[in-house]
Amino acid sequence: MEATAFEDYTIGSTRESFGRTITEADLVAHAGHTGDFFPHHVDEEFARSTPFGGRIAHGTLVLSVGIGLLAREINPLSFSYGYERLRFVRPVMIGDTIRTRATIMGKQDDPKRMDHGRIIERCEIVNQRNEVVLVADHIRMVQRRTPAGGSQPGAAQSRIDQLS
Amino acid sequence: MEATAFEDYTIGSTRESFGRTITEADLVAHAGHTGDFFPHHVDEEFARSTPFGGRIAHGTLVLSVGIGLLAREINPLSFSYGYERLRFVRPVMIGDTIRTRATIMGKQDDPKRMDHGRIIERCEIVNQRNEVVLVADHIRMVQRRTPAGGSQPGAAQSRIDQLS
Amino acid sequence: MEATAFEDYTIGSTRESFGRTITEADLVAHAGHTGDFFPHHVDEEFARSTPFGGRIAHGTLVLSVGIGLLAREINPLSFSYGYERLRFVRPVMIGDTIRTRATIMGKQDDPKRMDHGRIIERCEIVNQRNEVVLVADHIRMVQRRTPAGGSQPGAAQSRIDQLS
Amino acid sequence: MEATAFEDYTIGSTRESFGRTITEADLVAHAGHTGDFFPHHVDEEFARSTPFGGRIAHGTLVLSVGIGLLAREINPLSFSYGYERLRFVRPVMIGDTIRTRATIMGKQDDPKRMDHGRIIERCEIVNQRNEVVLVADHIRMVQRRTPAGGSQPGAAQSRIDQLS
Amino acid sequence: MEATAFEDYTIGSTRESFGRTITEADLVAHAGHTGDFFPHHVDEEFARSTPFGGRIAHGTLVLSVGIGLLAREINPLSFSYGYERLRFVRPVMIGDTIRTRATIMGKQDDPKRMDHGRIIERCEIVNQRNEVVLVADHIRMVQRRTPAGGSQPGAAQSRIDQLS
Amino acid sequence: MEATAFEDYTIGSTRESFGRTITEADLVAHAGHTGDFFPHHVDEEFARSTPFGGRIAHGTLVLSVGIGLLAREINPLSFSYGYERLRFVRPVMIGDTIRTRATIMGKQDDPKRMDHGRIIERCEIVNQRNEVVLVADHIRMVQRRTPAGGSQPGAAQSRIDQLS
Repeated sequence: MEATAFEDYTIGSTRESFGRTITEADLVAHAGHTGDFFPHHVDEEFARSTPFGGRIAHGTLVLSVGIGLLAREINPLSFSYGYERLRFVRPVMIGDTIRTRATIMGKQDDPKRMDHGRIIERCEIVNQRNEVVLVADHIRMVQRRTPAGGSQPGAAQSRIDQLS
Repeated sequence: MEATAFEDYTIGSTRESFGRTITEADLVAHAGHTGDFFPHHVDEEFARSTPFGGRIAHGTLVLSVGIGLLAREINPLSFSYGYERLRFVRPVMIGDTIRTRATIMGKQDDPKRMDHGRIIERCEIVNQRNEVVLVADHIRMVQRRTPAGGSQPGAAQSRIDQLS
Repeated sequence: MEATAFEDYTIGSTRESFGRTITEADLVAHAGHTGDFFPHHVDEEFARSTPFGGRIAHGTLVLSVGIGLLAREINPLSFSYGYERLRFVRPVMIGDTIRTRATIMGKQDDPKRMDHGRIIERCEIVNQRNEVVLVADHIRMVQRRTPAGGSQPGAAQSRIDQLS
Repeated sequence: MEATAFEDYTIGSTRESFGRTITEADLVAHAGHTGDFFPHHVDEEFARSTPFGGRIAHGTLVLSVGIGLLAREINPLSFSYGYERLRFVRPVMIGDTIRTRATIMGKQDDPKRMDHGRIIERCEIVNQRNEVVLVADHIRMVQRRTPAGGSQPGAAQSRIDQLS
Repeated sequence: MEATAFEDYTIGSTRESFGRTITEADLVAHAGHTGDFFPHHVDEEFARSTPFGGRIAHGTLVLSVGIGLLAREINPLSFSYGYERLRFVRPVMIGDTIRTRATIMGKQDDPKRMDHGRIIERCEIVNQRNEVVLVADHIRMVQRRTPAGGSQPGAAQSRIDQLS
Repeated sequence: MEATAFEDYTIGSTRESFGRTITEADLVAHAGHTGDFFPHHVDEEFARSTPFGGRIAHGTLVLSVGIGLLAREINPLSFSYGYERLRFVRPVMIGDTIRTRATIMGKQDDPKRMDHGRIIERCEIVNQRNEVVLVADHIRMVQRRTPAGGSQPGAAQSRIDQLS
């Protein structure tokens, strides 16, 4: 558990997870966990007749497992605030192996919390052919070493740095 | 499996799921499903020392189960495209009971697919005190009965109806 | 949750579930859930040497999942009383896809509860070749709008309507 | 794996399983396994408002686990044929401990298989107060050492021994 | 539950379990149970590039399931004390079928408990080719009918019988 | 995935895991995973009558989860060879929180593999009162940067460094 303050995040820095093969057991588990037994996920006969040609993983499965793959290092100063621009780009089929690349895309002051800042971390979940299957901007709220706008009151709230 | 075309969605219409109690077993299952064993979710001793006073559900657990609660009716003409403005508003503790309210907030033409349109369905996951714990705009791509902009070419792409 | 009173059930009416593929993960889960690790279910080497030529699903797995497939609509006026003539007709192998057809076969007064009646719902679980793998008569106790035999005391108890 | 032929079953003989506490985790697992997320089983708020005062186990859970409790000894000459008179007698609540008593109630010739006979084994699943929660007559098809009616053709089919 | 006292164990006596096929679902379950998602166990792409050519079961999976296979008979006078010489001899791949052979190798007085003795039970977990995949000496503490060294004080502690 | 060669392990160095609360769901999962449904683990009524006063975790559960807690960093040069002196020191009850401390206790040449060495890592699994519940010496085989005994043939095999 290594503490990283808001100030220490660098725009453009990246991390990448290990891989994990999405199995039939994962689909059964996710259907049972969520109660979503739609035939696209659990009926092989039906699924074969769709354009995908087989059962596809639930969108929430790909998100949950893909984000979970990053959960190796804990930053005690950070908590998850939400997501923007989450898109299910390609289907994940049984047997596909996914891993997650995360890039710090932007840093923003938080309008309400002077002692925190927002980190925008783009998460790209890719398959074994390096094709993006899910993309989302994860907004993480991270504690600052020193409150925003200490010496220059008012200025802090409007400061936004972004990777273009 | 009742087919509902894009044209038949009404802005402002709502649906609400049954309730489901989030159990310790759900947290253990989600940790094991995703590999996220952060102490906030699985270490009661640590969790008691946090401002929440106990283990909290993973954000992806609340999303997955909350969205899954809506998975009772299938619209074969619809598929999930993504999410916007997903926010973890309040923690979900072991023993909380959640249910999901969904409201059609907007309808949009899709820039690339003339035979589909986008439905913006706001999903509010609430707890037993009717407090919102998670909110997200679910973007669903739904097939049209008749392609957009047939008689008035060009016009279709820019049409956006929205619940203000 | 739509309430359907005893009087509103029609003999001969039917409903049919979605399909679900029975996976190796389902067999492992059911063995672990019930503690039944008989080699017919979990030892592929042994199972190959049997007339079935492979691992077969537990009878209680087929029943539990098959009946579960019908659990999409809830009738709050109904509860499960029991089963008659439950038969394991054919084995279900890993990879088979089952779905459930239910037909109202009979309606009976209940000897003890004047405000309820018994619905006999025949459940046929079939595989992807439309072969029946399990059949059972589900007895459901359903509330009446008006108690049985109100105007004609004594008559109610003996009334039985049945699909021949 | 000890082989017991049809002839060696004695009417009136009994066996009793160990006990097993039905946990919240079991209900979550069974809901996920079967897709039956009815609020009686998974919504504590709703369940508290019912006459039972809390979440109750699925009928198929009690049957599956209760019968599974007997799965310690395997008779390779026996297979499960079906059930009669299966009744859900009392609810099983989270925290109840069940065990299963089985009594050989009858032996019958099988009309189609001369080399097998039917064993009727009454299964009573009881709770920690020794109250019956589920009862069912399990019909097991068991191989004979010598085919039925060998010396007295015709007689075998009609022979039925029963515990009154 | 048959009670077997320390005195009744015979050096050289053996027992053997049923078989169980280790499935992809078992690996997913064990990863989720333990939090060990190392790519050797859950990333098929990575695993194919290793000398094993595929995903291998966790060592603790093989031990847990292999020892669990022996858990059919309970001796209420015995409890598990620990293991010696536990070795992971060969990898277990998805689809391998394991079973466990146990041999009483030795009996020892316990230095602290006069009313118990130690049973050394060698557990060999073998695959479908009868190759040992894991071996371990299970030390079980078993109650005696009569305390050790009653008539000959001092002698008991040093008595060790062993299968050479 | 950071590679650490045999030469870079330092006797006396330690690492410590996060904590994890052992839940009722974990016991149910482990019973189902292994098939060990002994009443000490799954029958609360029985367990209350034992000296422990409640259900205790399986020994293999404590080992699997405790060792799994260390599975955050992967050393691609290391694989698990086995365990010595594994002892179940204290029971783990539902609700206990465990974490694992590991100390490099010794380094040994391997008699057969000149390019590997053995690391003896003592694993102490402790509960929330810092009491040891399980201790074991994990033997890990780790690749060397340079094969043992290159310049002084014969000497390498007998070199053993140990923390006394």
